[in-house]
Amino acid sequence: MRALLSPRSVALVGASDDPAKTASRPQRFLRAAGYAGRVFPVARRATVLGEPAFASLDALPERPDHAFILLPTEGAMAAVADCVRLGIPAVTVLAGGFAESGPQGAAREDALRALLRGSGTRLLGPNSIGLANLHEGLVLTANAAFAEAPLPRGGLFVASQSGSMIGALMSRGKARGLGFSSLVSVGAEVDLDVGAVALAALEDGRSEAVLLFLETLRGADSLRGFAREAARRGVPVAAYKLGRSAEAAELAQSHTGALAGEDDLAGAFLADCGIARVETLEGLLEAPALLRRLPIRPLRRAPRVGVVTTTGGGAAMVVDQLGVRGVTTEAPSAATRAALAAAGIAAEGRILDLTLAGTRPAVMRAALDTLLAAPEFDLVVAVAGSSARFEPELAVQPVAEAAAAAPHLAAFCVPEAPEALARLGAAGVPAFRTPEAAADAIAAAFRRRPPRAAAPPAAAPGEGRLLDERAGYALLGLPHPPCAVLGEGPPPPFPVAAKALHAAILHKTDIGGVALGLRDAAALEAAAARIRASVARHRPELGEVPILVQAMAAGGLGEVLLGFRRDPQVGPVILLAAGGTLAEVLRDRAVRMAPVEPADAREMLAEVRAFRALEGHRGAPRGDLEALVAAVVAMSRLAARPEVLEAEVNPLLVLEEGRGVLALDAVVRVAAP
Amino acid sequence: MRALLSPRSVALVGASDDPAKTASRPQRFLRAAGYAGRVFPVARRATVLGEPAFASLDALPERPDHAFILLPTEGAMAAVADCVRLGIPAVTVLAGGFAESGPQGAAREDALRALLRGSGTRLLGPNSIGLANLHEGLVLTANAAFAEAPLPRGGLFVASQSGSMIGALMSRGKARGLGFSSLVSVGAEVDLDVGAVALAALEDGRSEAVLLFLETLRGADSLRGFAREAARRGVPVAAYKLGRSAEAAELAQSHTGALAGEDDLAGAFLADCGIARVETLEGLLEAPALLRRLPIRPLRRAPRVGVVTTTGGGAAMVVDQLGVRGVTTEAPSAATRAALAAAGIAAEGRILDLTLAGTRPAVMRAALDTLLAAPEFDLVVAVAGSSARFEPELAVQPVAEAAAAAPHLAAFCVPEAPEALARLGAAGVPAFRTPEAAADAIAAAFRRRPPRAAAPPAAAPGEGRLLDERAGYALLGLPHPPCAVLGEGPPPPFPVAAKALHAAILHKTDIGGVALGLRDAAALEAAAARIRASVARHRPELGEVPILVQAMAAGGLGEVLLGFRRDPQVGPVILLAAGGTLAEVLRDRAVRMAPVEPADAREMLAEVRAFRALEGHRGAPRGDLEALVAAVVAMSRLAARPEVLEAEVNPLLVLEEGRGVLALDAVVRVAAP
Repeated sequence: MRALLSPRSVALVGASDDPAKTASRPQRFLRAAGYAGRVFPVARRATVLGEPAFASLDALPERPDHAFILLPTEGAMAAVADCVRLGIPAVTVLAGGFAESGPQGAAREDALRALLRGSGTRLLGPNSIGLANLHEGLVLTANAAFAEAPLPRGGLFVASQSGSMIGALMSRGKARGLGFSSLVSVGAEVDLDVGAVALAALEDGRSEAVLLFLETLRGADSLRGFAREAARRGVPVAAYKLGRSAEAAELAQSHTGALAGEDDLAGAFLADCGIARVETLEGLLEAPALLRRLPIRPLRRAPRVGVVTTTGGGAAMVVDQLGVRGVTTEAPSAATRAALAAAGIAAEGRILDLTLAGTRPAVMRAALDTLLAAPEFDLVVAVAGSSARFEPELAVQPVAEAAAAAPHLAAFCVPEAPEALARLGAAGVPAFRTPEAAADAIAAAFRRRPPRAAAPPAAAPGEGRLLDERAGYALLGLPHPPCAVLGEGPPPPFPVAAKALHAAILHKTDIGGVALGLRDAAALEAAAARIRASVARHRPELGEVPILVQAMAAGGLGEVLLGFRRDPQVGPVILLAAGGTLAEVLRDRAVRMAPVEPADAREMLAEVRAFRALEGHRGAPRGDLEALVAAVVAMSRLAARPEVLEAEVNPLLVLEEGRGVLALDAVVRVAAP
Repeated sequence: MRALLSPRSVALVGASDDPAKTASRPQRFLRAAGYAGRVFPVARRATVLGEPAFASLDALPERPDHAFILLPTEGAMAAVADCVRLGIPAVTVLAGGFAESGPQGAAREDALRALLRGSGTRLLGPNSIGLANLHEGLVLTANAAFAEAPLPRGGLFVASQSGSMIGALMSRGKARGLGFSSLVSVGAEVDLDVGAVALAALEDGRSEAVLLFLETLRGADSLRGFAREAARRGVPVAAYKLGRSAEAAELAQSHTGALAGEDDLAGAFLADCGIARVETLEGLLEAPALLRRLPIRPLRRAPRVGVVTTTGGGAAMVVDQLGVRGVTTEAPSAATRAALAAAGIAAEGRILDLTLAGTRPAVMRAALDTLLAAPEFDLVVAVAGSSARFEPELAVQPVAEAAAAAPHLAAFCVPEAPEALARLGAAGVPAFRTPEAAADAIAAAFRRRPPRAAAPPAAAPGEGRLLDERAGYALLGLPHPPCAVLGEGPPPPFPVAAKALHAAILHKTDIGGVALGLRDAAALEAAAARIRASVARHRPELGEVPILVQAMAAGGLGEVLLGFRRDPQVGPVILLAAGGTLAEVLRDRAVRMAPVEPADAREMLAEVRAFRALEGHRGAPRGDLEALVAAVVAMSRLAARPEVLEAEVNPLLVLEEGRGVLALDAVVRVAAP
């Protein structure tokens, strides 16, 4: 993998002598950036841009570490074959025309995989605009943005599924005073995926944080492996992922040839990996400084932020944006107010406004020290006013000094103040340019969890088979109303429900397979006859189906859908949603990677808006939410049973506190046979 | 009002000779900015900052147009009295210590109002950091940000309830290549409020757009008057308002001494005034260019945007952000694709990616012309890649040329590209720096409506009195199940409900005042007796209450809360929410200023998430949503009846399509007697 990011020599296959052509860029950029390794243009001419060129890869005086193939699709395929034959360790392919372009392209992609299989060659792309290792002047990319001079060197590593974004992030980071180690366009990820590339970055010793720009989720296992290694090394990872909207999800699919997947599943996966997902572009660049300083520890409550400012309106913007993201701005406690008073600072209300106490650095410093020592704040945010623009050194000084002793400090500059932001950054203080990015990054930092230690065992292969309802109950072990098969023993106490019992009947009510509220044996017998007749009419191939008799449940306060499934991309997930059609329409649901602990399950409950109806407002009875938590946890443990492919309880009835929950149906798919 | 923004002379009362003091700033800033009028420092010394000073306002050689009072609270009060006595037309007060600081301050504020009453003096503040008219060098402010040189002159007018934000907006706007006419800190708005100040800006002939930074809503009538005049003149108005989160709402209250009010009511009011409310700070600065070009016309459907780009990933960010804000990115139609093909441009999918067609300006120009001529797009967004950074002139040229002919064009630059943004701005093309601000401003522009022509008549004063349920039905005229007072005529057909009928009983069920599902006369008589006994026990002062007998309604698909009230700040509003406790907890509601038209009511229905259950998903019956629309419209017309103070129907039952809606209760408060 050294050959990928730190090659000692590179071949530019299809390099152009015409500076107006895209294929001329890598050579020009490498020279402009002072790359120290050898560069071999491969082209059908004697020289390219004044340097000797080589007719083919075979004609090179040595085997290059890395070949960047700039040829169109067909030529690129042939060049990759040459690279494999010559044992070139790293190859990057610029051309498109693979799976994203239809069946013919997909076949080409298969051929590419076949070429690589068993070889010592690793491939970046196709559809990769290339990569750049700024510290080594390795600007091996056709991205026009790398005409940038000087290149901003630093500690941010970028892996992006969008080629254009490596340039956009670099230029935006530079303007923000940030520097980069390497930036990689991963393209279609036919071989090296985001996880593999980012893992390589951890080895370079220069990457202090990793930024991912994702259009979709591919190579989940690889990404998880990288994330765990990053956590082990204390390297924070932030991700911006497209696909919040239906339009973008569709776009990601057509643009990259990947299945977009469900955005909230991707979100659950990233969270499970300890990756901080941000929602704003600027937040992606600004988050790492905060992620590096703030410890990863599940708070299991709303994070509490203390705000100190010299500008009330400016601070209120951050408070507002934090509030809508679930981060509370906490007022100083009585003890903290007393400590502030001792330092001559009057504190009133939710934010500490120093306008009256004076905007001198010493006052800000005293205020910061007091707030940073107070136990009630998970983070302190210093909001700087005009001084950040006109006296950046004075404005930054107290914040930088205070931050040296306490890591949980960040800053937001209300005016345009690039110098203050750059100075804060240089001092290691997380600093933000807009209230939106500040709140975005802060909320994302607090949402982080340590990555899960191990992925669950792989599921059994195949489509599997469904269990019937009774077998489903048995496998899940969740509480349910007593039941018996008609004729096989004493029925449960009346009133009862009667249901057709057969694994092949998924939607019983649709074929007249359910009767509710049967008050006595006669009603039950009559209902059973009706059910058998109806099923026989709709599904004659099933023969006479058994009838499951189940006691009617009473006193339910709400219906819940509890689901477990193994997503082909991210793995086992547990899904909790309000029952009923409406909940489905509104996508009012919470998703986590499975298994989960009770604390996670409680957070899931808090995320489903409809469940607030179960919290006992206005004297209404409170639902047994702890029983629901236990059911979520139990269901999520199916992740550890590879033979269980999928399970759904819908509805799960939530009873009054102290009375538990009851599964009223169970659909379980297990590995065949 | 000319004396406010364009005074020919100013007095600085309490000017300081010490450049380190805040009270020295206005004089320094005025001189630095080259203010051409006369400046009179008023201080107890011979000179201030080298200029002759005057011992008092009485000692001035002429009556100044505008006095900026820099003294602390008590001295400021005395100075305002002097200004009133001398007939100085405009006074700005820096000091705080008024209503925001407790009962003593509130009394001081009353005294201030009394001083001004009937005088020819208008007051800005107190708690105003001052104002600046950049075109005239009138930097009459103590805001440190106005040390800025050169000051960015231009066409944006800012009125802000936060003093610090006038400086922050100016510096941020300058960095974005924007210029300002005047910026005003309105302070506590004891006399001149946001509306009055902004109205003055319309007269100055230099303000092409008005930006409002609001912490709360004050002076609604004045703001509405300004907004109507702005619309008449074609001057767009954008507002950023704090208070989305509970924390910020509380902060606005404590910080400014104003009642924060409910944020969605404020939002409904701003929308009703035709003011575009943005959600991001940068969106506030970037929106006006778009607002100036995009016509105000209610689309009554999701806005459709066409996107053309040279960088897929960058464009996808905008598409995603637009999507989550309800703006659809529309694929080119077959006709448009044909027109593009004729120009040699292949179009596939939702966005028009020119990467393959080439990034030459001529190609972009041809693509833009085709998209701008296509009927399917309400707006075309050009997303520029690296060329915007390195060849801003080339990147901007086709966009600027195309925009000259068609106003519905905007641009987003994916890399950091300040020069391209400034050039686009200079060419009048709305241009955006981040995908979030772009989507924010675009969505806000499409949400705009023409301001309502006239405010409804003022409500009758006083607390008013409640009507009983039957009188409530009669006044509202909404459909309801037939009813009769027991003993006063034939009862409605059984089954019926019996309810205690008395204006003084607001929550009938709480005191045993309701019986449902009564199947015959005997059951009704028994229930009536029970109700009378229970009411007599709970509310003996009411005597024997009449019993309202009402037919039971059947077949309801959902319950709705429909409310009308006169908000003390914004005026008559119509409120539509899902029924039940849950809806209240979730604040799943839509609010508009009343009265509304059917199209508005339909939009309200679409905003209440719970109502999707009434749309007939999965074969469920569809609710009579048009009947609900009619009920909303009818209820909203109460705005025109000043004698009606408040009305609520909860629940309003929505029946199956074709069967209407039914009010099951009615609480109406009318002016006494």
